[in-house]
Amino acid sequence: MDIATVLGIVSGFSLVVMAIKMGGGLIWFVNVPSMMIVMGGTMAITLINYPLSDVLSVMGILKNAFLYKIPQLTAMLPKIVELSRIARRDGILAMEKGVKKINDPFLNKGVEFAIDGVEPDAIRNILENELVFTEDRHKKGAEIFTVMGTFAPAMGMIGTLIGLVNMLMVMDDPKSIGPAMALALITTFYGSVLANLVFLPIAGKLKVRRVDEVKYKQLIIEGVTSIQFGDNPRVVEQKLHTYLSPKERELVPKK
Amino acid sequence: MDIATVLGIVSGFSLVVMAIKMGGGLIWFVNVPSMMIVMGGTMAITLINYPLSDVLSVMGILKNAFLYKIPQLTAMLPKIVELSRIARRDGILAMEKGVKKINDPFLNKGVEFAIDGVEPDAIRNILENELVFTEDRHKKGAEIFTVMGTFAPAMGMIGTLIGLVNMLMVMDDPKSIGPAMALALITTFYGSVLANLVFLPIAGKLKVRRVDEVKYKQLIIEGVTSIQFGDNPRVVEQKLHTYLSPKERELVPKK
Amino acid sequence: MDIATVLGIVSGFSLVVMAIKMGGGLIWFVNVPSMMIVMGGTMAITLINYPLSDVLSVMGILKNAFLYKIPQLTAMLPKIVELSRIARRDGILAMEKGVKKINDPFLNKGVEFAIDGVEPDAIRNILENELVFTEDRHKKGAEIFTVMGTFAPAMGMIGTLIGLVNMLMVMDDPKSIGPAMALALITTFYGSVLANLVFLPIAGKLKVRRVDEVKYKQLIIEGVTSIQFGDNPRVVEQKLHTYLSPKERELVPKK
Amino acid sequence: MDIATVLGIVSGFSLVVMAIKMGGGLIWFVNVPSMMIVMGGTMAITLINYPLSDVLSVMGILKNAFLYKIPQLTAMLPKIVELSRIARRDGILAMEKGVKKINDPFLNKGVEFAIDGVEPDAIRNILENELVFTEDRHKKGAEIFTVMGTFAPAMGMIGTLIGLVNMLMVMDDPKSIGPAMALALITTFYGSVLANLVFLPIAGKLKVRRVDEVKYKQLIIEGVTSIQFGDNPRVVEQKLHTYLSPKERELVPKK
Amino acid sequence: MDIATVLGIVSGFSLVVMAIKMGGGLIWFVNVPSMMIVMGGTMAITLINYPLSDVLSVMGILKNAFLYKIPQLTAMLPKIVELSRIARRDGILAMEKGVKKINDPFLNKGVEFAIDGVEPDAIRNILENELVFTEDRHKKGAEIFTVMGTFAPAMGMIGTLIGLVNMLMVMDDPKSIGPAMALALITTFYGSVLANLVFLPIAGKLKVRRVDEVKYKQLIIEGVTSIQFGDNPRVVEQKLHTYLSPKERELVPKK
Repeated sequence: MDIATVLGIVSGFSLVVMAIKMGGGLIWFVNVPSMMIVMGGTMAITLINYPLSDVLSVMGILKNAFLYKIPQLTAMLPKIVELSRIARRDGILAMEKGVKKINDPFLNKGVEFAIDGVEPDAIRNILENELVFTEDRHKKGAEIFTVMGTFAPAMGMIGTLIGLVNMLMVMDDPKSIGPAMALALITTFYGSVLANLVFLPIAGKLKVRRVDEVKYKQLIIEGVTSIQFGDNPRVVEQKLHTYLSPKERELVPKK
Repeated sequence: MDIATVLGIVSGFSLVVMAIKMGGGLIWFVNVPSMMIVMGGTMAITLINYPLSDVLSVMGILKNAFLYKIPQLTAMLPKIVELSRIARRDGILAMEKGVKKINDPFLNKGVEFAIDGVEPDAIRNILENELVFTEDRHKKGAEIFTVMGTFAPAMGMIGTLIGLVNMLMVMDDPKSIGPAMALALITTFYGSVLANLVFLPIAGKLKVRRVDEVKYKQLIIEGVTSIQFGDNPRVVEQKLHTYLSPKERELVPKK
Repeated sequence: MDIATVLGIVSGFSLVVMAIKMGGGLIWFVNVPSMMIVMGGTMAITLINYPLSDVLSVMGILKNAFLYKIPQLTAMLPKIVELSRIARRDGILAMEKGVKKINDPFLNKGVEFAIDGVEPDAIRNILENELVFTEDRHKKGAEIFTVMGTFAPAMGMIGTLIGLVNMLMVMDDPKSIGPAMALALITTFYGSVLANLVFLPIAGKLKVRRVDEVKYKQLIIEGVTSIQFGDNPRVVEQKLHTYLSPKERELVPKK
Repeated sequence: MDIATVLGIVSGFSLVVMAIKMGGGLIWFVNVPSMMIVMGGTMAITLINYPLSDVLSVMGILKNAFLYKIPQLTAMLPKIVELSRIARRDGILAMEKGVKKINDPFLNKGVEFAIDGVEPDAIRNILENELVFTEDRHKKGAEIFTVMGTFAPAMGMIGTLIGLVNMLMVMDDPKSIGPAMALALITTFYGSVLANLVFLPIAGKLKVRRVDEVKYKQLIIEGVTSIQFGDNPRVVEQKLHTYLSPKERELVPKK
Repeated sequence: MDIATVLGIVSGFSLVVMAIKMGGGLIWFVNVPSMMIVMGGTMAITLINYPLSDVLSVMGILKNAFLYKIPQLTAMLPKIVELSRIARRDGILAMEKGVKKINDPFLNKGVEFAIDGVEPDAIRNILENELVFTEDRHKKGAEIFTVMGTFAPAMGMIGTLIGLVNMLMVMDDPKSIGPAMALALITTFYGSVLANLVFLPIAGKLKVRRVDEVKYKQLIIEGVTSIQFGDNPRVVEQKLHTYLSPKERELVPKK
């Protein structure tokens, strides 16, 4: 579970609620029709902009992005080196048990292909192909959230325009002008909060995750093909080290 | 027919109408001259920005984009594999009947060239050339809608400026200020709704479709040249599989 | 003469005038000093941003862009094929008369080089060099108009700020506030109209024309070098066909 | 210590404080809850947008960027040339003492590898790999500050919207409208000051530093590999000179 | 001296002053503290964003850009061809006198290297290296002015916010509201004028100049290496002609 995201959303909304409460009643800022206009409208625009299947898959992307924690490169590296030792000593087939213990689906797949005797080049091709689709999926996810973050304030402004016109048309009672204008501003407020506290930073996080996940999977591809190539465990380790920053290299547990 | 687009436009406009009705009369938001300024002005700017032929072809692009459904890659793949089996068993000429049943104009053209004995390289060239023009057409379509989505709010603002100046020039009756200002805001409202609920998300959808259609046609080009090359049906299938995501591969109906 | 541009500018301005007239007097929107501030200021900024020679050449670019109609690819293609037939039958020198009838300066130059016996590679080099300069000139033209479209609204805003400050400094007579503010808004109105109805869409059209003119000249270069190479007229035709879209190919008049 | 940054921040804030004092009381501009909304909110959004580890490392990047002064290329160049002279005269191992005197960790590492007899290509690989990570770290730092500079004004606007709605809801006492609106504007003020006087220019400085640090480390890599290759000190000097501008070359102290 | 820039700045500021005078007193628009906030603040931000040395060198870039006139390609070309004739007839050393008469520092340097017998490849390397640094310097100059053009309006807005808050806090005397608000707007006015009439168009001019100066120096490099290579003067002329547009070629004085 990604702690920073939860912490950020909770603290961001807490601050907004706190600010609201200090100046008046929270009830003024809860307006169901305004919420429907902004959230419903943003949803509607997203449906025009993307095929239904893409919009539905957003939920999956989100869940995957926030519940599935990308394992640390520094933790995975020695496990792959250990596998290469087993393969060297007892043959490729002996890796089966070690792989099960590591329990990483992407590594699993790669090692299974190796055990089945698929050519190293073919394994690299299949795994890199899968990597490309992972990347595309993350990229589309970030794009959809960016689009939502662009259109939410636009829907907020449309709502405010509607409120303003309605208010200006019947300006009989000067007393009602204030609250009517406040109401008109609520949709702009919703659009701004949704875009800046939810959609755009989530799009940002998905972009960061994409880079991390790609690097992680590249490390595994490098490792599996290196093992299957029969590389010495020390060579495997050196090859994988190039995926780590100098600082990370010090964090790798030494055997 | 693209359901998401229709759903999105209908629900988006319903939400706007609902929001209008809740606060006042729908009639206040229907103003023919304001509509003419924004829609006519946007049209006029589009005519300055693009040649007449491009503007006229927009309608065709739109119709094509929303009525012609890009077939699913997962449905087309086994049909091409089946064709390759026929070609293997009974010769290239035997594909003629099978192709008619599939009834895809792009596939049709490719297979016809193959039956006529055109060289594989020449077929690939002709089909890829056509692919490039499909891509260009979609790209220009998305560009035109983006331009319209940029200029519609600008025309709305120009309309509002006209309304404001007219209002400010004759501020005799304080009672008339409200409605006059409301009227001035209507063009901004129209520009904003047109841009955010119609032009920009349609431009977005055309971009998504371009990627999908290109991928679909690339699959067909790969298939036709592979068949003509005399590839084993299993090899044809493997080659086409690389165009699918791991998830899509599971959806391909097995024979 | 480019009809769409004229149609667009005329209808765009008609709509604006109509909108003005409906709400009040056209005279309120004609203010010579405001016009001078916005147009003169934009001109001044353009002079800071570009060398004098570039600014002066804008007029030439404009005239060239709107009066010189790029010939249709579909009309030029059969003429070049016809020339190749003459060259095949009666020798390169015989093309001289045919070229004069076609009367295209770019084609003329290419054929003259061919008649003079210049090497095909040298002709291609010279013509492509000229193509690059055509492209650069169009690109600079589009850039200058984009810059003007960016600074016109800025000058409009500066004018409005001046008007507002002047108005706020002497708010003795409440009656004068309205007209004074209206006057202040006029420069914003001018800047917005100039940018959105003139400068930016013209920049857009110049971009579209660049693509068309480059394609047209590439077709001629291909044709001339193919003829000089001694290609069979049918081969010349096939080579040129790759520059047309599938739809355009059907429009080429058959012999 | 980077003087320009300190000078800029101190003088920038002094000017703002001076402007505030001239028009009224500084106390009006100090509002703890508004500060919390803008700074806390920006922090919260940054946590959603970046993993916790990235946010925490920002402090390190900042400290490193402002306290660690990138040595001048013109000062480092003759030192490396001197090293190459020692290596030529007394052998590679003799560099050890000279390197300690220079006391640059990156140069240190490179020379140590050379003394250990690592191959020139391997040294270049390891050092360039480290260079890439340095670049990535700086890039991420600049990105995080750009994101903060984008979201700070957004949080300011959200705070102002809350203040406006609260004010509009209870407009009983006309006297209270002014101060209430002033209070609402304070968050916009904070967001604008934070973004424009702190976050965005710091992001800019980190970008400039990245270019400088990369050039500095490339000079060292070139020098170390050139020395190990056994190049004549004059050749080493010439190679390193290409990293300097013509002006800098004149600043290099001649021996 | 670059006439267009001077003309543009003088006419731009004249128009602004004229507009101010027409509506009121010029004195209202001269406010020293507001000027300090905007100009000082922009300066302070620039110091945070760029190292001190870069900011100081801006003055040099500006002076160089506006006082040093890039010689015309069409004037320089025949001089280089003439040099090549001298070199052909009387040997490379004979160029010394001719070069002094031309008096172009960049050409001077190149010819001196040739006279000293440096290899053509080495000369090309050294001169191109210098070209790259010229380009970088111009690029950084344009960047700094763009940054100043971005932050000047931001400082203007911060100043206006300060003025507004101060005004709103003490709204006792309705008469004072107008002038107080006018004063608040002055900083926005300064920021807008500085950005749009000075910083941004100067950044634009530096970009245009960069392209021109690079082309000019490339012509010289081509010429010097061609002469040293012993090319026939006619070949030198032909090579240099490719750097000119078809129109410029006609302007070259024929011998």
